[in-house]
Amino acid sequence: MDNLSKYFEVVDQSKQEFIDKLREIVAIPSVSGDATRRQDVIRMGLWLKEKWEALGAETKRVDPGMQELQGQTIPLPPIILGQYGNNPSKKTLLVYGHYDVQPALKEDGWNTDPFELVHNDKDQLVGRGATDDKGPVLGWLCCAEAFKRAGIDFPVNLKFCFEGMEECGSEGLEEVVRHEADKWFSGTDAVCISDNYWLGKNRPCLTYGLRGVSYFYITVEGPSADLHSGVFGGTVHEPMVDLVHLMSRLVDVKGKILIPSIYEKVAPLTLAEEKAYDGLDFNHDDLAKDLRSNVIIHDSEKDTLMHRWRLPSLSLHGIEGAFYGPGEKTVIPAKVTGKFSIRTVPDMDPAEVDRLACKYVADEFAKLNSKNKLTVKMVHDGRWWYSSPEHPNFVAGAKAIERVFGTSPDLTREGGSIPITLTFEEALNRNVLLLPMGASDDGAHSVNEKLDVRNFIEGIKVFGVYLEELSKPRV
Amino acid sequence: MDNLSKYFEVVDQSKQEFIDKLREIVAIPSVSGDATRRQDVIRMGLWLKEKWEALGAETKRVDPGMQELQGQTIPLPPIILGQYGNNPSKKTLLVYGHYDVQPALKEDGWNTDPFELVHNDKDQLVGRGATDDKGPVLGWLCCAEAFKRAGIDFPVNLKFCFEGMEECGSEGLEEVVRHEADKWFSGTDAVCISDNYWLGKNRPCLTYGLRGVSYFYITVEGPSADLHSGVFGGTVHEPMVDLVHLMSRLVDVKGKILIPSIYEKVAPLTLAEEKAYDGLDFNHDDLAKDLRSNVIIHDSEKDTLMHRWRLPSLSLHGIEGAFYGPGEKTVIPAKVTGKFSIRTVPDMDPAEVDRLACKYVADEFAKLNSKNKLTVKMVHDGRWWYSSPEHPNFVAGAKAIERVFGTSPDLTREGGSIPITLTFEEALNRNVLLLPMGASDDGAHSVNEKLDVRNFIEGIKVFGVYLEELSKPRV
Ligand SMILES: [Zn+2]
Ligand SMILES: [Zn+2]
Ligand SMILES: [Zn+2]
Ligand SMILES: [Zn+2]
Repeated sequence: MDNLSKYFEVVDQSKQEFIDKLREIVAIPSVSGDATRRQDVIRMGLWLKEKWEALGAETKRVDPGMQELQGQTIPLPPIILGQYGNNPSKKTLLVYGHYDVQPALKEDGWNTDPFELVHNDKDQLVGRGATDDKGPVLGWLCCAEAFKRAGIDFPVNLKFCFEGMEECGSEGLEEVVRHEADKWFSGTDAVCISDNYWLGKNRPCLTYGLRGVSYFYITVEGPSADLHSGVFGGTVHEPMVDLVHLMSRLVDVKGKILIPSIYEKVAPLTLAEEKAYDGLDFNHDDLAKDLRSNVIIHDSEKDTLMHRWRLPSLSLHGIEGAFYGPGEKTVIPAKVTGKFSIRTVPDMDPAEVDRLACKYVADEFAKLNSKNKLTVKMVHDGRWWYSSPEHPNFVAGAKAIERVFGTSPDLTREGGSIPITLTFEEALNRNVLLLPMGASDDGAHSVNEKLDVRNFIEGIKVFGVYLEELSKPRV
Repeated sequence: MDNLSKYFEVVDQSKQEFIDKLREIVAIPSVSGDATRRQDVIRMGLWLKEKWEALGAETKRVDPGMQELQGQTIPLPPIILGQYGNNPSKKTLLVYGHYDVQPALKEDGWNTDPFELVHNDKDQLVGRGATDDKGPVLGWLCCAEAFKRAGIDFPVNLKFCFEGMEECGSEGLEEVVRHEADKWFSGTDAVCISDNYWLGKNRPCLTYGLRGVSYFYITVEGPSADLHSGVFGGTVHEPMVDLVHLMSRLVDVKGKILIPSIYEKVAPLTLAEEKAYDGLDFNHDDLAKDLRSNVIIHDSEKDTLMHRWRLPSLSLHGIEGAFYGPGEKTVIPAKVTGKFSIRTVPDMDPAEVDRLACKYVADEFAKLNSKNKLTVKMVHDGRWWYSSPEHPNFVAGAKAIERVFGTSPDLTREGGSIPITLTFEEALNRNVLLLPMGASDDGAHSVNEKLDVRNFIEGIKVFGVYLEELSKPRV
């Protein structure tokens, strides 16, 4: 029996114990967005610290400071840094995960208490955080325990960084990562993050790209105060009218962005890349079922995925300052701010996107000939991220999936952003692999969040093989 | 000395007493929108009832029922009906007014306690309700008292209808008016309402027209729940995109309504009517000062007033269901409802406006080729009102103004609606005169609401002459 077979055997034997551990931590309601739960978040961080120390890891608690939340000043949850093994002849992997969770109330529509893990008859583990991100975070601990129990030398030096503020914008994390880059994180050879999902429900995947996002405000202001439409309707330039005209010129109904030159820098599609879209675990029927409505723009799955992963998009989110309540109100709002964002892809430059979008809006506004005042600005941008699935870090991940699942992984990108990916890549100048454990239907952030037992247990096996593969010398 | 000169003398002599009476009732915080003030509203209604009875009027208190307000079930304020004089050889005038007021807090920006009337050095009476509508309502009482004190026979039979829910949609009033039409109100020859304002600050006016309003909802819905723009941006039909396209096609930046045929029924401008716009007490400089911004669409005052009074307009009020808060949120709203209204004018037919608008929106939506679902509906319509300034009721008002102010009144219309006007006209089938007491800068509904002493005292004189004029036989 080779080392990995032994490792698999131990993981299988420890299944119930690992599930019980997940039950133990799901029961800690570490909701970072709820000030009254802050002590639970901290308790959850300390649980991880203690368990890793018990295994023999060296750890460090970093407290990034205080936070204003719901009218209280409270401490930010600790960032738990760790080092498990320190053998200069081994590769060093840094793993990141988060131990905080989204809010959850039984009344939201959960079938069971969200903080009591239920192992149901579909062999799913239902509970808040099961898949996002307590299952994966616990997975690394289970992996190390299984190696130890199997009496196998741990293949790599493992560093870890577990935070408790991910669901609230990772407040405080970026500074710590940059600060520790040449300290706690020095010597890192590769990074692995397990905090996203398979494309479908059956086939595991590796994720090699994320879109960026640039967020814009268009503000149109006219009179100094809201007006009554009876008195002023038809006689003054209404900011809402100008704004709606501008917003309608940003994107067409089929999702085509109308800002000139915006597509110019989009990387051309290579034949190899196009081929990678074939046979992915994704289909429109499932998607329409999830949406409970067929509002899919494109005809083919490939088109849909290309528009999600490798093409920019523009979404209109809403308007601040206009009437938004139920019922009727005959107001002419005096100042309105339209909010939209552009998802960016390789090789778009956020600074240029900013320039093109703002110039276009200003030009269109000039055409309107309105006496109102326009302000348009980019308020936030996060770069896209793109990595090569040929990189040894990805090859190691792919081998692990082949060994455990008997199939090569889907190679996926995501339409959203995971800003911490870029932070680690830039701060450590190392390749980052996104290696998801959960499936597309896990319902992270939703009611009845779950993680399949298969994904959890086989996922722990994948982690182990991945470490083993990483440790092999590669070009 | 003729009767009216004697009447004027008494009014002038009673000036301080009348101001003190206004002070007494401004001190009753009859805020109909605040459940905790309901007893004050009722107390205010009973004050009027008692004072008129003391003068010799017959009165009736009508309680229209209960109301849910701010989580409480409370009685609606009484409608106070009255009859002052019952001489079959005299004309009978019905006057309407309201004794409730808008909310007011010192902290809103008032210079003085809003419920303590201040007679300032500009000879203004500052206090909540001074002009809207306690001054005018009290005016009728002062008028009757002055006639009595002067020993002059009251020229008409006066019926009155004072309500305490006007600032909250006149809940309960319409039913009472219709019910009493052939009972308490039977024998009414004409109606007079004093609850609007002069066009400017100097010249009195008579108001002979009001625009109507038809309110619409455009709902676009797609997926069953809000989506994340990272995952779905560029791949699904976004309801906000469809809605913004539709809203942008309703009206152009210069206020022109884009719904085909919508202007067809607008009454053509006659030469006589056009002439009436000359020399009105209205100018763009003052308007721009009020708006604190020059966002006026039209070049001439005449154009502005025509667009306020005799032409339809379309205003975009807001969107329900989209992101409206401060900050950034990358949501694709699943269901959004755009709200707009059309101000209608003679001879537009609300049913046709409904049909034209809904058909146009549906046609434009069809052109979009979206897979989302559209619903468009008219949720409320109030008819425009138009009366001839040649009617004897108006001629009487004009004569009164000429006698008191030495100038003919501006003949005005208003851009907004006063639904009760139409209710009285329809229920009693009698002419309604809008005879304002306050000036355009009185700040009804705003902070530091005021009524000039001149408007109050000369207004009481106008009421008296108007009654005298009404009593004269006319063709
Ligand atoms: Zn997560
Ligand atoms: Zn999450
Ligand atoms: Zn009023
Ligand atoms: Zn009012």
